[in-house]
Amino acid sequence: MRQTDYGKRSLELHQHLKGKIEVRPKLAIHSKDDLALAYTPGVAAPCEAIAEDPSRARTLTIRGNSVAIVTDGSAVLGLGNIGPLAALPVMEGKALLFKEYADIDAWPICLATQDTEAIIETVTHLAPSFGGINLEDISAPRCFEIEARLQELGIPVFHDDQHGTAIVTLAGLINATKITHRRFSDLKVVINGAGAAGIAIARMLACQGFPEDACTPVQEIIVCDTKGTIHRGRRDLTPIKKFLLAFTNPRDIRGSVHDALQGADVFIGVSVGHILTEEDIRRMAPRPIIFALANPVPEILPEIALKAGAAVVGTGRSDFPNQVNNVLAFPGIFRGALDAGAPRITGRMMLAAAHALAAVITNPSPERILPDPLNREVVPRVAAATREAAEKEFLVQKL
Amino acid sequence: MRQTDYGKRSLELHQHLKGKIEVRPKLAIHSKDDLALAYTPGVAAPCEAIAEDPSRARTLTIRGNSVAIVTDGSAVLGLGNIGPLAALPVMEGKALLFKEYADIDAWPICLATQDTEAIIETVTHLAPSFGGINLEDISAPRCFEIEARLQELGIPVFHDDQHGTAIVTLAGLINATKITHRRFSDLKVVINGAGAAGIAIARMLACQGFPEDACTPVQEIIVCDTKGTIHRGRRDLTPIKKFLLAFTNPRDIRGSVHDALQGADVFIGVSVGHILTEEDIRRMAPRPIIFALANPVPEILPEIALKAGAAVVGTGRSDFPNQVNNVLAFPGIFRGALDAGAPRITGRMMLAAAHALAAVITNPSPERILPDPLNREVVPRVAAATREAAEKEFLVQKL
Repeated sequence: MRQTDYGKRSLELHQHLKGKIEVRPKLAIHSKDDLALAYTPGVAAPCEAIAEDPSRARTLTIRGNSVAIVTDGSAVLGLGNIGPLAALPVMEGKALLFKEYADIDAWPICLATQDTEAIIETVTHLAPSFGGINLEDISAPRCFEIEARLQELGIPVFHDDQHGTAIVTLAGLINATKITHRRFSDLKVVINGAGAAGIAIARMLACQGFPEDACTPVQEIIVCDTKGTIHRGRRDLTPIKKFLLAFTNPRDIRGSVHDALQGADVFIGVSVGHILTEEDIRRMAPRPIIFALANPVPEILPEIALKAGAAVVGTGRSDFPNQVNNVLAFPGIFRGALDAGAPRITGRMMLAAAHALAAVITNPSPERILPDPLNREVVPRVAAATREAAEKEFLVQKL
Repeated sequence: MRQTDYGKRSLELHQHLKGKIEVRPKLAIHSKDDLALAYTPGVAAPCEAIAEDPSRARTLTIRGNSVAIVTDGSAVLGLGNIGPLAALPVMEGKALLFKEYADIDAWPICLATQDTEAIIETVTHLAPSFGGINLEDISAPRCFEIEARLQELGIPVFHDDQHGTAIVTLAGLINATKITHRRFSDLKVVINGAGAAGIAIARMLACQGFPEDACTPVQEIIVCDTKGTIHRGRRDLTPIKKFLLAFTNPRDIRGSVHDALQGADVFIGVSVGHILTEEDIRRMAPRPIIFALANPVPEILPEIALKAGAAVVGTGRSDFPNQVNNVLAFPGIFRGALDAGAPRITGRMMLAAAHALAAVITNPSPERILPDPLNREVVPRVAAATREAAEKEFLVQKL
């Protein structure tokens, strides 16, 4: 089906529903007794219990199972900076997926500010009614600072465009290396796109900020932005791109993304569509791995890449095999983190999630390196692995 | 049933439910097609429609029907300043009532700040995903400034502890004057309590800030705080209490609440329990009207007041007749305001709501000046009146 058909039908659906989610009571009010228990005067008892021991909010209120989906509307899908109101349909969709996949009660919080300090302050202030914060569609580089500075909030704060994408990409890459009989630590990877996703993928594949004993770094990563490779001769690099040079582009390759692809095993595109040709695929190592994740138009169409010799192709689209879709990660990760009562989502938890996701596919093939987004086996397995990692990590911290 | 029994059972209920509300999708995800329409790529179409015309958020998203219940936990029930986490059970209860009574999707936002500026800024920032803001349990005098300064947000912002209480009190008083064959404009009223509720009731009964053509002021109001009557000789008055003197205590009565009651027709208590005696009732005009709204212990028990000559007694409690309960007002008011697309809740809308609520009781009696909180006729009638008033008012503004 063509994208425009989806658009027309989606608009009709939204007009019909007037909001894709709703708030529902978990109990009915039929009598004065019901009212007295759910509201005044009875409600004073749980209030006082929490005032005495704030940790009881997790079991007496929505806080044990609620997530705020926070955006400033600055980097929404491929639409860019469309603002908080126009971002709302995406956040509602995300809330819907949270409930549908992981039974988590998520509510959109679309912010009327794009100022880093104001966003940090606002999220800090509204945190008490939520058990977790899913940052969404906040543009780079602000997203890095915002997420980093919110880590001490005491509840999981997770920027899905960074880590969700990185986790699913890593899971897909683990299975793709099996098919192509490569060793993960031998991989030479080119990432096109130095936004939230590209930088998070580079960090995870290089084990930067991840525990050594749980992480295997790839051999080489080259990150490209719109100006070409990020190398040591560039004078136009932002702080975060300079930081990338500490663990990427060891041979200091200069030139375009096409130059960078010479001999590479893996291409990961998280930028714009239609930039690779058959020639680019042939320039890579034999039987390369291609993740063309730009949406809706991938960097190269799967049939073209395969014809040119690619061993396996993943995209962001549901109408091709191997969809790299964040819904494979975020519901299970938050489920696991909430169930563990984790104060943060750590690198160890993310790696555990990625490996659990990869392990859902017991026998990977070029057409199947990742489970289908509709596969309901995924969330329980990702959640269990995330929870287990969290419980180990925070138990150790407590001792 | 004793309050403590409610407490024990309520705690058990809360432990069992782990949150009284949940987020529910309005559509199921069974296929890739469902996913493509509710989420990517289809969702780009409603996003773009809103980016082009922001007013479409009202019909394409949750914004047409969603309310944030915002508190800082500084004045929760009779429990006082117990903070945002401990306030959560009350806000969940309120959200439950919003849905149950008015089909409105409300979500608790408990703020980790009690700073006036920070609260105003936070609410301003999080407004885009909500169609209305219900301020709740924020202590006086901060609540006045916070509510006033948020009126330009473009969506209804309503502090229920002020106006909700005032509206239900006015409705009850309208019917109580009918029973006692008084003229409303002849009433001499003593209000005990100069917090959010007391001040809002005084303003509404004096028509201060309400349109003259829609409002009948009572003859005399005396407001008392813990130090006694608010009079012109007091040197300890806060700005808001000084402001009260512009339209209250015309005879400049000095002394205690007991002194103020001499010859009064109406007592409205919104402070602490057990302060009136039979003697106080006898000191008032014959067959006085008593609203003893302190919770859980009223200023005087109904049987004592009635025995001493009161014509009609209302309380805040569900186990006595004439419960003055905000649930009679806020669901219908927000329903009407949202349906009208009103940018504010105006005095005219509040008065219309109060009169509609009073009119639900066609034949008032001493035992029945207000409808039961479980009466499902109330919300549609209050909503219709509020909506009608809003549509008239904002139509005139548009012309």
